[in-house]
Amino acid sequence: MQTLQVELGERSYPIYIGANLLVQPALFSRHIAGKQVAIVSNETVAPLYLESVKQALAGFDVTTVILPDGEAFKGWETLQLIFDGLLTARHERSTTVIALGGGVIGDMAGFAAACYQRGVDFIQVPTTLLSQVDSSVGGKTGINHPLGKNMVGAFYQPNAVLIDTSTLNTLPARELSAGLAEVIKYGLICDEPFLTWLEANVDALRKLDQAALTEAIARSCAAKAKVVGADERESGVRATLNLGHTFGHAIETHMGYGVWLHGEAVAAGTVMALEMSCRLGWITAAERDRGIRLFIRAGLPVIPPEEMTAEDFLTHMAVDKKVLGGRLRLVLLRQMGEAVVTGDLPREILDATLVADYRAMVEHLED
Amino acid sequence: MQTLQVELGERSYPIYIGANLLVQPALFSRHIAGKQVAIVSNETVAPLYLESVKQALAGFDVTTVILPDGEAFKGWETLQLIFDGLLTARHERSTTVIALGGGVIGDMAGFAAACYQRGVDFIQVPTTLLSQVDSSVGGKTGINHPLGKNMVGAFYQPNAVLIDTSTLNTLPARELSAGLAEVIKYGLICDEPFLTWLEANVDALRKLDQAALTEAIARSCAAKAKVVGADERESGVRATLNLGHTFGHAIETHMGYGVWLHGEAVAAGTVMALEMSCRLGWITAAERDRGIRLFIRAGLPVIPPEEMTAEDFLTHMAVDKKVLGGRLRLVLLRQMGEAVVTGDLPREILDATLVADYRAMVEHLED
Repeated sequence: MQTLQVELGERSYPIYIGANLLVQPALFSRHIAGKQVAIVSNETVAPLYLESVKQALAGFDVTTVILPDGEAFKGWETLQLIFDGLLTARHERSTTVIALGGGVIGDMAGFAAACYQRGVDFIQVPTTLLSQVDSSVGGKTGINHPLGKNMVGAFYQPNAVLIDTSTLNTLPARELSAGLAEVIKYGLICDEPFLTWLEANVDALRKLDQAALTEAIARSCAAKAKVVGADERESGVRATLNLGHTFGHAIETHMGYGVWLHGEAVAAGTVMALEMSCRLGWITAAERDRGIRLFIRAGLPVIPPEEMTAEDFLTHMAVDKKVLGGRLRLVLLRQMGEAVVTGDLPREILDATLVADYRAMVEHLED
Repeated sequence: MQTLQVELGERSYPIYIGANLLVQPALFSRHIAGKQVAIVSNETVAPLYLESVKQALAGFDVTTVILPDGEAFKGWETLQLIFDGLLTARHERSTTVIALGGGVIGDMAGFAAACYQRGVDFIQVPTTLLSQVDSSVGGKTGINHPLGKNMVGAFYQPNAVLIDTSTLNTLPARELSAGLAEVIKYGLICDEPFLTWLEANVDALRKLDQAALTEAIARSCAAKAKVVGADERESGVRATLNLGHTFGHAIETHMGYGVWLHGEAVAAGTVMALEMSCRLGWITAAERDRGIRLFIRAGLPVIPPEEMTAEDFLTHMAVDKKVLGGRLRLVLLRQMGEAVVTGDLPREILDATLVADYRAMVEHLED
C-alpha cells in the first residue's frame, strides 16, 4: 500500500492506494468520527463491493443509498435520493458519507456531503481508474443542470480516499483505457519522466498488474495534488489540468454524453492540443507523435469525430467554463511536461488545428 | 452610515448600515468584480426596491430572478429558478449574485451563489429586520427538505452586506417585532449593556427611528460577528446564538410553519429558556421577568401555545439538529448577558419548564 498525504492545511487528508484495501476495517474506522455511516453507491458497483464495505464497517450504524448508474442520473432528482436516505434514517451532523463507485457517485455523494446539514464528513472509495486519478484530489463535487455539465456543485474535501486497485479487475477494458487518458495527461502537463515510465509500463497497466497500477495512480494523484495545492480554487495553474478538456467537452457535447467516454474525448482533445502546440512551435512534430503513440497504446481514440466541423467545435467551446470575459482560453504545452493556460490564440492557428488531418497523422505514425 | 468589518481572514467583508443605502451605486460597484450581476428577489420585495437597485447597477449586465414569496417556496424547485436564470443568461464564474429580500431570499440566493459553478460572488441586501440582524453574519445558506428545515445548504460568506434601514418602512409591524426578538436575544446571550440600551430605545425602534435602528442593527451584527468569529463552523460557542430556538423550533413545527413567525416562536422559546435558567438557579425571577417585559414591549408573544403539551415539545425537540449523539443540548443563561450550551439537563427541571404556567407569570408582571 502507498499512502499519499494531500496537504491542505487543516483539511489535509490521506489517499491510500493498493490491492485489497476495501476489506481493511481500520482504514475506514480511523476516519469515522461518529456512529452513523451512509454508503452511497450505484446499481452496478453495489452488487460487486457493497457487502465487503459493509463488513469492513461492522459496528457502525450503516445506511445504504443505491442510485441508478450513469451520467444521465447526475442531477438533482438523484441527489435528492441521498438526502431522503440520510433524513429518513435520521443521520446527524456527525455522520460520515462514503462514496463507493466511479466519478458520478463521487461527485454526487461528495456534493450531498457538502450540503447535508451544511457539511458532514466524507470518505471516497473510487472504483474506476478515472475517478481514482481524477476525483481523489481537488475537492470538486457537483451535479449537472439541463443547461450545462457540473454547473451546480461545491469545492469539498474528503476526510480520506481509499483506492483499492483490485476493484479495477471488474472494470470494462474500455473504461480502464479512458482512465489511462487522464494518467497520460499528468505526464504531459507536469511530469515528463512519468511519460517515460508510462511508455515502459502501459502494457502492464492494461493487464492490471497491481503494482504498476498502484504506482501509476500514486504518481497521478501526486501530480494533481501538486497542481491543486498551488491553486485550490482554480484561477490559474489548476486550469492546466484541463489539457484536452475544452476540445474534449466539445466532442462529448456534440456526440451526446456517453457516446464517447470522457477519457476518450480527452484523449482526442489532447491530441488536438498537442497539434496546436506543435503549430505554435512549442513542441516538435516528433513530440506530438510521442503523445499520440502513447494514447494509441493505451487503447484510446486519437482522431476527433470526422463528422465534427470547425464550426461545431467553436460553437460548443463558446459555452465552456474556461471562457473568461467572453475570451477563449486553452491549455497547451509549452514543452513536454509543461502545460500553460493561454488566451493569446492566433485565430488562424486555432482554425488550422480544428481542420487538421488527424487521420493522416496517425497513418504516418504507422509507417 | 455605520460600517462593520466582519473579520474572517481572506473572506472578511463589510456590513454597511444606514438609511437610503440602496441608491448609492458605489456601495455595490466596489464589490462587483465582473460585468454580470444577477439580482434575486421575490414578488413582494421586487415591486418596492428592484428599480432602485437596478438604477444603482447601471452599467452592469443585470439579470433579475423573481421568486415566489414565502418559506413554503424555500426548496429545490425554487432554487432551480435561480440556476435557470443564471444559465439562460450565460452567467460566468465571474458573476455576482445579489440577494434582495428577507431571510428566505438570502438563504436561497446565497446557496445558489455557493453552488453555481462551485461558487460565485455574493452581495446581500436584506430588507427585513430579522434578516438584517440574523443572516448578515455567519454565512449560513440553504434550503428546506420535505423532511426538515435547512437540511441542505452551505456555509458561504458574502462579499458585502448592504443594510438599508429605510426598507424597514415598508415592513409589516408584526415582522418588525419578530426581528426585535433576535435583537433582544443578542443582549441576553452576550451583551448585557445592550439590554439596558434596548429598554431605553425599544419604543423608538418600533417607531422606525432610523438612527436607533442603525445602532440596534450594528450592535446585533457586532454581537453575532463576535460569537461567529470565535467559532465559524458551529461546534461550540456559536450554538449560543440558538437561545430559544430549540423550544422555538418545536413551536414552529407543531403549529405549522408560518402560523407563528420565526421571531415570535423564538421570543416564546426564549422565555422558556429564561424560565429553565431561573429554575436551575442561574438567574433570578426578576431577571427572567426583565426579559419577558422587554419581549412584551417589543410586541412579541411570551406564552407558548396553550395547546402544546410537554410531550409535543419533547417529540419535536428529539429531531432538532442540536441533538448530538442522541443527547439533548440546550442554550441557557448562566447569567444575564452570558449564554451557555449544556447537555447536563436535570430531567425534572426540563419537564417543569415545559409545563410551567407562563400565563400566570405574565399576569403577575402586570400587577
